[in-house]
Amino acid sequence: MALTPARTMPGVLELLPLDQIAFQRMLDVIRRNYERFGFLAVETPAIEYADVLLTKTGGETERQVYFVQSTGALGKAGEGTPELALRFDLTVPLARYVAEHERDLSFPFRRYQMQKVYRGERAQRGRFREFYQCDIDVIGKDSLSVRYDAEIPAVIYSVFRELAIGPFTIQLNNRKLMRGYFESLGIVDAEQQMLVLREVDKLDKRGADYVRDTLAGDAFGLGAEIAAKILAFVQVRSTSLRDALGKLDALGAGPATMEQGRDELKEVLGLIHAFGVPETHYALNLSIARGLDYYTGTVYETTLNEHPQIGSICSGGRYENLAGQYTKSHLPGVGISIGLTRLYWQLRDAGLINTATSTVDVLVTQMDEAQLPAYLALASELRDAGIATEVVLEGGKLGKQFKYADRAGIRFVIVLGEDEMAKDIVTVKDLRRADQFEVVRGELIKTLRVELEQAAAMG
Amino acid sequence: MALTPARTMPGVLELLPLDQIAFQRMLDVIRRNYERFGFLAVETPAIEYADVLLTKTGGETERQVYFVQSTGALGKAGEGTPELALRFDLTVPLARYVAEHERDLSFPFRRYQMQKVYRGERAQRGRFREFYQCDIDVIGKDSLSVRYDAEIPAVIYSVFRELAIGPFTIQLNNRKLMRGYFESLGIVDAEQQMLVLREVDKLDKRGADYVRDTLAGDAFGLGAEIAAKILAFVQVRSTSLRDALGKLDALGAGPATMEQGRDELKEVLGLIHAFGVPETHYALNLSIARGLDYYTGTVYETTLNEHPQIGSICSGGRYENLAGQYTKSHLPGVGISIGLTRLYWQLRDAGLINTATSTVDVLVTQMDEAQLPAYLALASELRDAGIATEVVLEGGKLGKQFKYADRAGIRFVIVLGEDEMAKDIVTVKDLRRADQFEVVRGELIKTLRVELEQAAAMG
Repeated sequence: MALTPARTMPGVLELLPLDQIAFQRMLDVIRRNYERFGFLAVETPAIEYADVLLTKTGGETERQVYFVQSTGALGKAGEGTPELALRFDLTVPLARYVAEHERDLSFPFRRYQMQKVYRGERAQRGRFREFYQCDIDVIGKDSLSVRYDAEIPAVIYSVFRELAIGPFTIQLNNRKLMRGYFESLGIVDAEQQMLVLREVDKLDKRGADYVRDTLAGDAFGLGAEIAAKILAFVQVRSTSLRDALGKLDALGAGPATMEQGRDELKEVLGLIHAFGVPETHYALNLSIARGLDYYTGTVYETTLNEHPQIGSICSGGRYENLAGQYTKSHLPGVGISIGLTRLYWQLRDAGLINTATSTVDVLVTQMDEAQLPAYLALASELRDAGIATEVVLEGGKLGKQFKYADRAGIRFVIVLGEDEMAKDIVTVKDLRRADQFEVVRGELIKTLRVELEQAAAMG
Repeated sequence: MALTPARTMPGVLELLPLDQIAFQRMLDVIRRNYERFGFLAVETPAIEYADVLLTKTGGETERQVYFVQSTGALGKAGEGTPELALRFDLTVPLARYVAEHERDLSFPFRRYQMQKVYRGERAQRGRFREFYQCDIDVIGKDSLSVRYDAEIPAVIYSVFRELAIGPFTIQLNNRKLMRGYFESLGIVDAEQQMLVLREVDKLDKRGADYVRDTLAGDAFGLGAEIAAKILAFVQVRSTSLRDALGKLDALGAGPATMEQGRDELKEVLGLIHAFGVPETHYALNLSIARGLDYYTGTVYETTLNEHPQIGSICSGGRYENLAGQYTKSHLPGVGISIGLTRLYWQLRDAGLINTATSTVDVLVTQMDEAQLPAYLALASELRDAGIATEVVLEGGKLGKQFKYADRAGIRFVIVLGEDEMAKDIVTVKDLRRADQFEVVRGELIKTLRVELEQAAAMG
């Protein structure tokens, strides 16, 4: 039989075990923190009816959708069966979920969802066709206090503090403030405001000169003075809470929309402080716009101070109505998303991922085949104490067994030979510290636990 | 705008939050136990090249495959782009993974994988088109000791002990023993042996009379005597390890294949004991055949003693060569799978799932808006101590706040009013015990931790 080459399609990130463990640890940290803030687990199916997924989306998104059909019992598409597609984000499925289960949910509904999404992207370095999104959203029924906008940065802070990938800054803005300011400059048409927003969003990529010239130029026709004002506005950054509040006041009076945006932003900034986020970790950044049209108030981006080239590692904002395409209920919300697959890939690229240790804590070596029952009994004890333990079931040279442990990232290797048995001790080799010690058999669990807890506490 | 009805396709299990939490707890238990035995995390992409996925499978499976295509940048199928499909199990992706990454893996390679698989099943109660499989496999390079066949039941025991869904029995058989016994009855053709195996597999569903008559009848033409012998063989069950070994010996001498199967089974049964699995939890069951052709030695099924109608909740076995379609390397292995979506659904049906408690431990109520910073500070303290805490950010009547907690399955509700503040205490309402107590503010974390740890220990 001719062999089929074993391969995956481009645009997926398949990891070797030690990398997968590092990835899984990040997923666990995110989930633990989402749960600590009272967000509830939701999972939705990967396959949905295409008409349900695509109600709101336009051409660009639709071009990237994966459609699904079964050749089996379901019949082929085009034979009267509804079209199916893979989810391309977690927001549309959330909207569908909330609309479908509205009567069974308590509001404000706080949910987290950490699943993969699928996009038929052109294959390209750093672009993924399958990737994890880790989302939280709070959805209100009819209304939702702006206080929830202040809770989100507290969650972001908590997640990235524990992920320990270096100092970071949560950057905030408010779309009402932006649109109100544009209005004060005579840009009153909502459509044109959106176009200006999108232009401003290019600031980081294209630079100030490019954006200023575009706004002043023929396409927008705003003139040099207004373009300069917009540029000055979007270049506002704060260095502390007090500085942020001062800079917001210094913008001067404006139309109602602008005042509302400023009030919201001031309340949110103040409350973030009460939520315990240190001032060093959040800032005003009036250039943050977020591309998506549906954000209406607070918007967030988060950047690593020492790795600005990575861009935003966690973004989101406030939206007016989650599920207008499915229900007449008015469901305002606020949320964020961490695109973990891409983030992991970037962090690994930047050397910020530690893939040195396995989930396996201990390898029990096999010195003497006849003693296998003793090795198995020892392993059972360790496992019952919560210590992940592998036993070498097929012997071989001890050196080879040590090499296996080393390569597999297993930290502790246990030797239980004749000598040890006679003295009721075990020999423990700590591969991380390149150290070796003997411990009384009855003390083994306690000793290993102390070491493992210390290691866990140190990340 | 006309509303699109919010709905999911049939054959998917979408859960409300408290159900999802119960499901997630099961996933966590399974993962924790897999990791304790030294299995390593692997995830593979849901979408694979169709030619890679479908090398081995025949008509029936192929009819249930979901094919995938993008209308976007990838181009439509039939325009020279390779066909894509969704994985329909985790075994084929494992084979592809091991063949693709062989040089980067250490053998024996122990991996677990817990992901969803997709099958275009006809919509029917209890049949799922998207469902979780939770698999472990040990893959050897060139050879793999039968000792690994004894480790698998130890993992099964550990998982289902902690899942605490009632007493269960891991049932074992060996395909070589079966085939060798058939051989001793004159059924020497491998093809016919397989047909007899498949017939025997129907024993539970169709009953002994049906299977005996079929084997004796025209289709098989084995005659009444041989059919009776086969029936007697497959009805062998053991009540203890000693009984199992005795019943294996009582089968009498047979051809080489049979002796090899018996030797393997005896070694496995004895070692399971050494792995610490109580005799009450495993048994010989010579009717276990497993439908799939690729099992070649030990086979397992696991049943709930008090719910036999649920059928096998965890099955698997030993196979000769994992990835012959992708590589010339000889890769024998042994593994099992838990179909968690279906199991959860059946357990819920049988009233065996407890969905009473949330992942949220504590709700901090809002007595007085002006004290919000104090509530937030308290919540931060609790979260830093690992206690999942939600704060009511939009006030309202206290009764309504309690009702919210009750409906959401949150156990502890904290009241921090003027009185409490003055006395430096908090009032804690324990909704599970319908109890209420006051505690000194500085003792709150310790008190809650004790209660939560007790509850966790009791499952």
